[in-house]
Amino acid sequence: MREDKRKANELRTVEIVKGFQEYPEGSALINWGNTRVICAAHMDDKVPPFIKGSGQGWITAEYSMLPGATQGRARREHTPSGRSSEIQRLIGRSLRACCDLSSLGEISIIIDCDVLQADGGTRCASITGGFVALALAVKKLMSMGIITRPPVLNQMAAVSAGIVMGEALLDLDYDEDSRAGVDANFVFAPGGLLAEIQGTAEGRPFSREQLLSLLDLSSAGAEKLFELQRNTLGEVLNEVTARNA
Amino acid sequence: MREDKRKANELRTVEIVKGFQEYPEGSALINWGNTRVICAAHMDDKVPPFIKGSGQGWITAEYSMLPGATQGRARREHTPSGRSSEIQRLIGRSLRACCDLSSLGEISIIIDCDVLQADGGTRCASITGGFVALALAVKKLMSMGIITRPPVLNQMAAVSAGIVMGEALLDLDYDEDSRAGVDANFVFAPGGLLAEIQGTAEGRPFSREQLLSLLDLSSAGAEKLFELQRNTLGEVLNEVTARNA
Amino acid sequence: MREDKRKANELRTVEIVKGFQEYPEGSALINWGNTRVICAAHMDDKVPPFIKGSGQGWITAEYSMLPGATQGRARREHTPSGRSSEIQRLIGRSLRACCDLSSLGEISIIIDCDVLQADGGTRCASITGGFVALALAVKKLMSMGIITRPPVLNQMAAVSAGIVMGEALLDLDYDEDSRAGVDANFVFAPGGLLAEIQGTAEGRPFSREQLLSLLDLSSAGAEKLFELQRNTLGEVLNEVTARNA
Amino acid sequence: MREDKRKANELRTVEIVKGFQEYPEGSALINWGNTRVICAAHMDDKVPPFIKGSGQGWITAEYSMLPGATQGRARREHTPSGRSSEIQRLIGRSLRACCDLSSLGEISIIIDCDVLQADGGTRCASITGGFVALALAVKKLMSMGIITRPPVLNQMAAVSAGIVMGEALLDLDYDEDSRAGVDANFVFAPGGLLAEIQGTAEGRPFSREQLLSLLDLSSAGAEKLFELQRNTLGEVLNEVTARNA
Amino acid sequence: MREDKRKANELRTVEIVKGFQEYPEGSALINWGNTRVICAAHMDDKVPPFIKGSGQGWITAEYSMLPGATQGRARREHTPSGRSSEIQRLIGRSLRACCDLSSLGEISIIIDCDVLQADGGTRCASITGGFVALALAVKKLMSMGIITRPPVLNQMAAVSAGIVMGEALLDLDYDEDSRAGVDANFVFAPGGLLAEIQGTAEGRPFSREQLLSLLDLSSAGAEKLFELQRNTLGEVLNEVTARNA
Amino acid sequence: MREDKRKANELRTVEIVKGFQEYPEGSALINWGNTRVICAAHMDDKVPPFIKGSGQGWITAEYSMLPGATQGRARREHTPSGRSSEIQRLIGRSLRACCDLSSLGEISIIIDCDVLQADGGTRCASITGGFVALALAVKKLMSMGIITRPPVLNQMAAVSAGIVMGEALLDLDYDEDSRAGVDANFVFAPGGLLAEIQGTAEGRPFSREQLLSLLDLSSAGAEKLFELQRNTLGEVLNEVTARNA
Repeated sequence: MREDKRKANELRTVEIVKGFQEYPEGSALINWGNTRVICAAHMDDKVPPFIKGSGQGWITAEYSMLPGATQGRARREHTPSGRSSEIQRLIGRSLRACCDLSSLGEISIIIDCDVLQADGGTRCASITGGFVALALAVKKLMSMGIITRPPVLNQMAAVSAGIVMGEALLDLDYDEDSRAGVDANFVFAPGGLLAEIQGTAEGRPFSREQLLSLLDLSSAGAEKLFELQRNTLGEVLNEVTARNA
Repeated sequence: MREDKRKANELRTVEIVKGFQEYPEGSALINWGNTRVICAAHMDDKVPPFIKGSGQGWITAEYSMLPGATQGRARREHTPSGRSSEIQRLIGRSLRACCDLSSLGEISIIIDCDVLQADGGTRCASITGGFVALALAVKKLMSMGIITRPPVLNQMAAVSAGIVMGEALLDLDYDEDSRAGVDANFVFAPGGLLAEIQGTAEGRPFSREQLLSLLDLSSAGAEKLFELQRNTLGEVLNEVTARNA
Repeated sequence: MREDKRKANELRTVEIVKGFQEYPEGSALINWGNTRVICAAHMDDKVPPFIKGSGQGWITAEYSMLPGATQGRARREHTPSGRSSEIQRLIGRSLRACCDLSSLGEISIIIDCDVLQADGGTRCASITGGFVALALAVKKLMSMGIITRPPVLNQMAAVSAGIVMGEALLDLDYDEDSRAGVDANFVFAPGGLLAEIQGTAEGRPFSREQLLSLLDLSSAGAEKLFELQRNTLGEVLNEVTARNA
Repeated sequence: MREDKRKANELRTVEIVKGFQEYPEGSALINWGNTRVICAAHMDDKVPPFIKGSGQGWITAEYSMLPGATQGRARREHTPSGRSSEIQRLIGRSLRACCDLSSLGEISIIIDCDVLQADGGTRCASITGGFVALALAVKKLMSMGIITRPPVLNQMAAVSAGIVMGEALLDLDYDEDSRAGVDANFVFAPGGLLAEIQGTAEGRPFSREQLLSLLDLSSAGAEKLFELQRNTLGEVLNEVTARNA
Repeated sequence: MREDKRKANELRTVEIVKGFQEYPEGSALINWGNTRVICAAHMDDKVPPFIKGSGQGWITAEYSMLPGATQGRARREHTPSGRSSEIQRLIGRSLRACCDLSSLGEISIIIDCDVLQADGGTRCASITGGFVALALAVKKLMSMGIITRPPVLNQMAAVSAGIVMGEALLDLDYDEDSRAGVDANFVFAPGGLLAEIQGTAEGRPFSREQLLSLLDLSSAGAEKLFELQRNTLGEVLNEVTARNA
Repeated sequence: MREDKRKANELRTVEIVKGFQEYPEGSALINWGNTRVICAAHMDDKVPPFIKGSGQGWITAEYSMLPGATQGRARREHTPSGRSSEIQRLIGRSLRACCDLSSLGEISIIIDCDVLQADGGTRCASITGGFVALALAVKKLMSMGIITRPPVLNQMAAVSAGIVMGEALLDLDYDEDSRAGVDANFVFAPGGLLAEIQGTAEGRPFSREQLLSLLDLSSAGAEKLFELQRNTLGEVLNEVTARNA
């Protein structure tokens, strides 16, 4: 039995508030159980050197915790820690994988994910909320004529699953995560397609079968998140999605 | 006539949400017009070397902007910029000035002020909201027996005033601030007493009389902020206040 | 057909030279096709703060490229880049997962992986060669009486697999990796057990079936690497392995 | 009675040595009691990005202590500390406020203030001596044809005042400053006009009346400093001053 | 009698392996007793600002130790330590002194010297092996048409000598170096000509005569190193050498 | 003929002002032609880890340029540049070589050399003036009972010499140094004994004979500097000098 009475295959309550910050091109606050992340998408008119002149755009992410996000103050990081680097690279890759970068034109979109409160699953919340901020930013940039073709190929959402006391559980909170023997994060496109998979044995190695049970749990959970994204974005999602995706 | 119809001596709408973050000892979100700052107060059981062994405590602050706080993304600062250093030193000094540090015992309280949205007056919002977070943290630490004597000597609040197009105005927003010829910040204790004054000529120097007109405007404005703090904190304010203050 | 004539399920030639450096407690040079990594294991008599006093030991890794490792000089990194951070965290986690840390006692073992030449698969070479350096260091520390119980629970090896032009291939070289649509790294213990899995869609998302084909290819490849480790380490492997693993 | 027999409204002995360093465009050593600051003004042919193309110039400052300046060696600062940042921003703002930046043309002037010896009032000495270095540099740049219109609008000087044991005192030395209950710095243009005011309660807040007593003391003190600047600069001051200032 | 039976004027065994790394323009591994250094020469198409536009090229060096190079792990240096800075400046100066920089054209050559194993004399090994890497790189760049005139003026090699227990010894190993009262490094061109001399008293100062005895020992030793370089480079040396050197 | 009419074997005018800063344990300003360096010696009650517990003391140096020291502002160095590192290591080694470190007791003395004005020879001025600051600090620490035995073994002074247009010249100024084909710095103890020698060919390598001519010039020059140190220090020199030196 889980502490908060959830079933093994049950997500925590997730809600997404559009436009939480006024100034970025797109923004969203995602409340996922007690985990809360502010996602902001800004345009930058420069692209990284390695794609300069290619006509392609770029999407990148920065991830950080507010000092008040954790029990016991989280020190501000002068340079991103190893953990933060790993997470922001994951967010960036995941959100690039949902876009046709050549439709962006030579601009960058930076997704800032600032964790207001951390109770497990901050990277999944960042990707799931980051997609909403990205879609809103794309919509705005299309309305300003900066992006001319809808670049989004598919929705993108992420969810964790893990094995705690021998049982496969969807969407671990901080406390479950601390006791998990296997901990995995899955980034999905609709239809059970994977953009990214990361699984780690915290103690003993795990089997092919255990991996598949986590994959199946999370694949079902992701569909709920896609629905929430669609409800949040409404018509905007159609407008930013490439027809032939 | 001000853009938002305010009178020269009128504050923007200010509201303070207690307990915006769950984990810090005390926290508050202050919405001051379009300026929004998250204030979180954490205890640290260490004090700086220069007061070690004195039996005294310490209060310090960190100030930072979220990347989404401004029009055009605010880059994350690896080390606090000159501006941020100046502001966080001001916040720290101001909040130390409202406490009897010897009543804290040898602990530190760190006030993190993270600007969600910046439309002028972020340092004043940080001090005014930071006082609430501090009071809540003191209350919690008293209830845990870590602080044994109520240490707060008086409320503390800050407000800006400036001279725009020759007219003295209370509480400048970003746009007014950009056009101001004199820009000043005042930190008050109740009764028109000053903890800090900082005034700057943006162009031509200003006179003694102009300084006094700004002082009087802001002194009146501060009283409104004290009232808001009292309404927000209720009984807590009495509990944390030293009787002989 | 692969550039170097390998079959889809064929590893490049891998060889491991024990004791490549004289001073570390354990060291190995792993030549994996054109990829070459120096792995060195040093003891440190301190452990990180979060396990101090627990009686447990710790294993961590640092990963770096020599400037001459790549076509076009690789600049020295002042702080580990995001990519290097991600890799060294993976190596550390993987090698911790093959040891009973409580049998180490309160010491740390640092595995330095310095890439002499990079032609794809440097993180897999680092883990596979790092295991050999670790085992040699454990043997030396046991013979010095610093470690008293054999701590190794199982061998650990890593291999990549990916999908290139629609075909699942084992052990991508740099050129194949650049053209891969899916790129995955698997860290195994013997018997097809997983310590870590990381898969990334470079373009379009991938299916459950594609993931499984990569998992099966790499699981078979890992067995070859375990054999090579056993041949390289000989009797040492038995001596460092916990009997009840 | 003050330690050094000064009256409450008396400055320490101040002298300014022109041209203390040969290579900068302008330089001065200011000896202010035991406080000694080297001020050097260099031209840079670049301006900050935010005024590029505006035709305007810029004046900025850097402030640092020599290790031998204090009792107990002052460590070299790798990045300016919060205190140094605050001071150099104040010096820069103050010296910009005495110039018509559009008369400079698109060049920068950097005022380096290096404290040889610190006995209180280093920021005031930096501004007062920095004005002399600035005027000398402007003169030299005019004679080289780089500046074509005299840009100086008015003299600028700074002095501290504070409340020690209940008494308002002009120009605190280090020892007085340590015991002060209120500590304020005033930057003046001639005629009692203020460019900057910064006052801080070190313990209890202070009243409007106390602020005015400090303002009046310092305003009178500043006139002495203007006289010293005029004596030091002689004819140069006329040559660099805009006629319609 | 020396620990390893060498005579006072005898070098340790030195061998140079050409092309140890495949990707740099030139590379060499130098094994000098137990000291082992990887030297890699890369071309960069930029030159430092101070020679931009002069038509001249530049040669610079970076020096670093692998963590496994020493007894007790050598921490990775985030910025080059004082010692590393000093050494890499010496290597750079020495290798610039063997080339006609105007024959290089406006390119830079960077010599990376990474110490695999350190048993004294790493800077001398870096210079002696670095010359080989440089010559190989020049040859390659000539064959690619990037360098059009042979730029090498003379060979360059370095060797240490010191006074241990009153006796002048050639080529100190780490243990001898630790006990030396005088420690000197000499960089030679053929014919006993000096490019660089650095001598240090570790305890008491030394005399003119002692300096000369070290100079003579090392001058003879350098001739052996020139022979080794010639044997290693063969025909390449002629091809890269300016005829009128 | 030299620009400033000096003979080939003639030093520039050198003078040393004792006690230029009041707060350090010892200080001196050395004016050497147009080169001016402030030398300050502070005590630190800690020693570096590698001699902790040995009963020995330590002497170290820091070297920096004021921004106004050079034609065209010298940027402040956040970390010491390669050049500064090299110089401060040289100063530290040289001043350690004139002291019996075991007579210091377990304290450190830090010599700060801040260049006020740079016209060639700043490292020689730093060592020569640093010796005076050191001796004054030792005297003060002896009078305070912190150092109990006189630790100074001999005076220490440094001077440069070089070959300009084929001629060996003593004590190069900046302009001569820029045109020198060989540039050398010599650190002497009285009697022509060497503590340190550093010679560099700026273009073509130099011969044994050229080296000796520079050594002889500088050895004679150093005797003048010893005389100046003796005149400056007077009786202090005897008091700090070990009798059996």
